[in-house]
Amino acid sequence: MAETIGAATVTLEQAEAFLRDFAKMSEFGATPNGGVDRQAASEADIAQRRWFAGLLESHGFRVEYDRIGNQFGLLELMPGAPYVVVGSHMDSQPTAGRYDGAYGVLAGAHAAFRLAEEWRAEAVIPRYNLAVVNWFNEEGSRFVPSMMGSSVYTGVLPVGQALATTDRAGVSVAEALAPTGFLGDGDGPPAAFCAEIHIEQGRLLENAGTTIGLVSASWAASKYVVTVEGAQAHSGATIMDDRQDALYGAALLVVFARELADRFPGALHTAVGQLDVYPNSPVVVASEVKLLLDLRCADEAVLAEANALLHERFAEIERVANVGISQTLSHEWGINPYQPEGVALARAAAERLGYAHGEILTVAGHDSINMKEMVPTVMLFVPSVEGVSHNEGEYTRDDDLVAGLDVLTDVVRRLAHGELAASAGMKVQA
Amino acid sequence: MAETIGAATVTLEQAEAFLRDFAKMSEFGATPNGGVDRQAASEADIAQRRWFAGLLESHGFRVEYDRIGNQFGLLELMPGAPYVVVGSHMDSQPTAGRYDGAYGVLAGAHAAFRLAEEWRAEAVIPRYNLAVVNWFNEEGSRFVPSMMGSSVYTGVLPVGQALATTDRAGVSVAEALAPTGFLGDGDGPPAAFCAEIHIEQGRLLENAGTTIGLVSASWAASKYVVTVEGAQAHSGATIMDDRQDALYGAALLVVFARELADRFPGALHTAVGQLDVYPNSPVVVASEVKLLLDLRCADEAVLAEANALLHERFAEIERVANVGISQTLSHEWGINPYQPEGVALARAAAERLGYAHGEILTVAGHDSINMKEMVPTVMLFVPSVEGVSHNEGEYTRDDDLVAGLDVLTDVVRRLAHGELAASAGMKVQA
Repeated sequence: MAETIGAATVTLEQAEAFLRDFAKMSEFGATPNGGVDRQAASEADIAQRRWFAGLLESHGFRVEYDRIGNQFGLLELMPGAPYVVVGSHMDSQPTAGRYDGAYGVLAGAHAAFRLAEEWRAEAVIPRYNLAVVNWFNEEGSRFVPSMMGSSVYTGVLPVGQALATTDRAGVSVAEALAPTGFLGDGDGPPAAFCAEIHIEQGRLLENAGTTIGLVSASWAASKYVVTVEGAQAHSGATIMDDRQDALYGAALLVVFARELADRFPGALHTAVGQLDVYPNSPVVVASEVKLLLDLRCADEAVLAEANALLHERFAEIERVANVGISQTLSHEWGINPYQPEGVALARAAAERLGYAHGEILTVAGHDSINMKEMVPTVMLFVPSVEGVSHNEGEYTRDDDLVAGLDVLTDVVRRLAHGELAASAGMKVQA
Repeated sequence: MAETIGAATVTLEQAEAFLRDFAKMSEFGATPNGGVDRQAASEADIAQRRWFAGLLESHGFRVEYDRIGNQFGLLELMPGAPYVVVGSHMDSQPTAGRYDGAYGVLAGAHAAFRLAEEWRAEAVIPRYNLAVVNWFNEEGSRFVPSMMGSSVYTGVLPVGQALATTDRAGVSVAEALAPTGFLGDGDGPPAAFCAEIHIEQGRLLENAGTTIGLVSASWAASKYVVTVEGAQAHSGATIMDDRQDALYGAALLVVFARELADRFPGALHTAVGQLDVYPNSPVVVASEVKLLLDLRCADEAVLAEANALLHERFAEIERVANVGISQTLSHEWGINPYQPEGVALARAAAERLGYAHGEILTVAGHDSINMKEMVPTVMLFVPSVEGVSHNEGEYTRDDDLVAGLDVLTDVVRRLAHGELAASAGMKVQA
């Protein structure tokens, strides 16, 4: 089918326009060290969304918001047909990099702009309409959980629960979004397919000299919300044997998480990214520590073994530190594949365009992981230099950014023309 | 000299009045679990100070504030003479106990009320005037450092620096105090002597069946402000070997602090009470952790050895966790004695009144530790049940509270009559 679609290459002018817009994007929430701080519904996020709405409208796309503030740029050429949804998220972690999410939204937009021009020039009507998407609050640093916008869109998270979620200052999502005009009342455009491109955030592509990662599955993961309960005490006067130090218990757990990863080198990633101490006063033994502990694994059997070891350790720490540990599993995923037909479609695109490509798993979560449960979804990666991410030094080379845009454009073209709908045995919900 | 002062015993009526006022005091910032939350210059602290000013005035004391908001209740019977300063602090840690500080302020006030009545009834003019004191911000949970009010009063901390100190919300001491009317413009009354009574916050008195602790010295201490520097990274995608996880480094340090205390059982207390993670986001490896690490010790040689081991461990953790550790010693104290003449005076008072008494060291810091560097100072302890403190369950039995009030009254009486000024070789600054 590829022959009927026409050659896909990015012109120098298109590449420059893309990089110019990307530089402009990176000004929103820019930090002194070359990164961005653009947490969900922050001033910087809001200002960037306004700019992006203007960009979409200047290319003839209609801008629409759903009930959780997902931002869509719609091109409806086939009245009533469902949409190929392409994009990512523009919110960021604090002091984060410029590429994470933002690259995928802008690449989705430029791919859509180029296809719109093509179709206009060639008087082609595609089989599906186009929706560029900027998912709300993918990062989850201000409002937990992450991937909030795509979770509501796909029905995994009730919209009422999402809107009621509060940040540390007690501001709810509804309160943060209401004054911005980004809170719509619908469910967003109906999807037929989805595509997302993202930086890898690891270093496998770079190490292998591969430009385009064809994401075939996501790592298995177990994510725990852990509370360590001790008792407040004077941090000087209280004799050591009497202490029930919640921070000591939590520290033993943070150290164990690293030791656990060391037992399964390469196969298991563990982390405690968030940890809050109460009362967190200089002269008080902590009575409570809350932390988030993640295990991510390329092998479900290893993950099961690691979880068992972790549970043994919970009990040991309770004994050693004289604390109580309660924990709930907030997420538990197995190795979760993307549709193989989508991977094949992406491979065909990369091959035709002559970019080095290879299959890869994603360790990080992405909105496409939600979307692939709803519709056939294609996920692409471009390399991250030295794997640096969630860091102001995050970097992807311009030629890789443009290569990714090139492949994404062909992927969206193929999806819009119905290449996956035509695949034998492919069930399409629309 | 004791014979000339007259017998000291608390009448039932005086005891009941004291316990009634103490119950009233405990209503300010009361928590559901029987404790208090009355951080410096909080609403509860302010309301309690207003109540206390009224109590002082109703007993004929003139209320005055100095430049850092220390609250004084003055009884000037000998015009121009310096003061016996007696009291403690009414601010508390978050979710703290009712006794810490508050007991000492109220006992100081009731001792002063009783002496004022005595002197009026007997037409006695003491040699020194009386100042009941409620030191500002002893706890240091909202505004660091602790013992702020007494540090400014004794000239250890510049007032400008104290007033500019901000809490986590960015509110300065000056801003918090200005609207309350508690910010005066003077240096407070000149001191000749000082007395303070406090709950022990440990369990030595209880274990020994002793009612009155005669505090002879404070433990040596080294207090560190530690920053662990790593690098922000994706907590899932980043391979483990690439991580520079500041929280892992900090956790190794928290665990080591406990191991260090275990090497010197009973002699060394260690603690990390405050620990802050940046950016503290669920999916980000922390780039920076700041924490406060204290070593407190009854033996200066042990403390020196512990400090040396700690510095070795700093270097090991930098290597193991691939982080940088910078630290400054914010406080460094040796074993620091109270004036032996003051201890002898307190012993004489306890003996005459027939209370079981014994010498004890203080592990915790108290405003009297600042004051004893300026003037001869007497520090008394009463027992803490099971040593529980900085905890809503903090408890001291009523009869111990009243016994402490009784001894404190006699101590203040002796100080006001010049018993220490008369001691051979005792230098009194006034």
